[in-house]
Amino acid sequence: MTYCIGISLDAGLVLTSDSRTNAGIDHVSTYSKMHRCETNPDRCLVILSAGNLATTQGVIQQVRRDVQEGQPRNLNTLNYLADIAEYLGDVLVNKIRKHTEQTGFVPDATLMLGGQVHGRNPNMYMIYPQGNYISTSDETPYLQLGESKYGKPVLDRFLTRETSLEDAAICSLISMDSTMKSNASVGPPIEMLIYPRDQFRTPRHYKFEAEDPYLIAIRHEWANHLNRAFRSMPRFEGHHPLSNGDVNIF
Amino acid sequence: MTYCIGISLDAGLVLTSDSRTNAGIDHVSTYSKMHRCETNPDRCLVILSAGNLATTQGVIQQVRRDVQEGQPRNLNTLNYLADIAEYLGDVLVNKIRKHTEQTGFVPDATLMLGGQVHGRNPNMYMIYPQGNYISTSDETPYLQLGESKYGKPVLDRFLTRETSLEDAAICSLISMDSTMKSNASVGPPIEMLIYPRDQFRTPRHYKFEAEDPYLIAIRHEWANHLNRAFRSMPRFEGHHPLSNGDVNIF
Repeated sequence: MTYCIGISLDAGLVLTSDSRTNAGIDHVSTYSKMHRCETNPDRCLVILSAGNLATTQGVIQQVRRDVQEGQPRNLNTLNYLADIAEYLGDVLVNKIRKHTEQTGFVPDATLMLGGQVHGRNPNMYMIYPQGNYISTSDETPYLQLGESKYGKPVLDRFLTRETSLEDAAICSLISMDSTMKSNASVGPPIEMLIYPRDQFRTPRHYKFEAEDPYLIAIRHEWANHLNRAFRSMPRFEGHHPLSNGDVNIF
Repeated sequence: MTYCIGISLDAGLVLTSDSRTNAGIDHVSTYSKMHRCETNPDRCLVILSAGNLATTQGVIQQVRRDVQEGQPRNLNTLNYLADIAEYLGDVLVNKIRKHTEQTGFVPDATLMLGGQVHGRNPNMYMIYPQGNYISTSDETPYLQLGESKYGKPVLDRFLTRETSLEDAAICSLISMDSTMKSNASVGPPIEMLIYPRDQFRTPRHYKFEAEDPYLIAIRHEWANHLNRAFRSMPRFEGHHPLSNGDVNIF
């Protein structure tokens, strides 16, 4: 499984991914799911990948080759992020279709694209295995790939467009930590990329191993605060139970 | 969708369920999912239900009729909670099978059974649509039905066998609140039943409507504490980004 988060803020972008892949519980490996394209100084592009590893590796290889060979349609020639999402969708669909036709097995994968092209706003897209894609909204400034449910409440609680890059980064780490606690197939190292709007230089790219002191500090602090919060919740001794006439009894 | 939690503690049992059913987004209704059997003073039994509403209503009706008609195998004649789980599994499988054979549509449902028979320990079982069942463990003292992921981290964080009944009740309400925040198909009223071990009298049965002042207090207090926790997380300004040689760049 996989867990990736992409957040699009007024201040820029924050992308976070785990690094665990598995093909069955005895075939667990570590692969980076974060890929940056920095061959054109007028843009910053990051791709996150989830799903069948052969498919995502094939897509990234194809995309990289299209850049290197100077194909007419590649990451550097398209001038709208939506067009780049469309292009990635086409590459993805072709890769999946080939193997589906040959074997009947559908090696599904999903991509996330974050970035900015000079003269336009930064944005974030999620690209489905069918090749179509969605973006974030003002109300929901984030997208998730993979094992998304455990870590969603904390994102819903804290993220708005106005959230700072560092707060969004911390929120992503808490969300990732909750997910790793509840699902064994999401695992470290965690990669995180922070892109301040209109920068177009190398973004800040972090990697947190399982024993990273900062990750452990976040985990412990969060657990301590939640324990204190839990212990201080209002008691409900005063609440009145229902009488038997109001419930399903037989 | 549905969200139900059953917690088995040294001190007794806590069962919580939402009340929303839906068959498509324009067919949303409110049905209690909590059913108590109190026709034999040597036992306290509670059944929670999730899944196809026709199946769960049919199962409860059959179970109630078996009690009323004094069938040899019913909730009052079986003396082990596991045997009652087995019986519920048989009723469930038969109900599902009949409709599957007639139409091909599989109206799946899942049950939870909590309770205590005199002379034995209280316990909690989850009964699958296939009729088999599992119980809680010392390490995982709870079971969940339905939309379980959003609310799982908070249960993992706070529940042990030694947790008090009231703490488990509060934990369940927080878990339910997180789930309702992230999933529109889980909704109030929330029913909660607290059964202190070896009591064998009517358990405390609560119902929390959407605007219940205590539920609102829990929600606000939890949100306030989490906001404070979030604002006090250690900053990671000091963390060193990776150099470009360590990441996937092209």
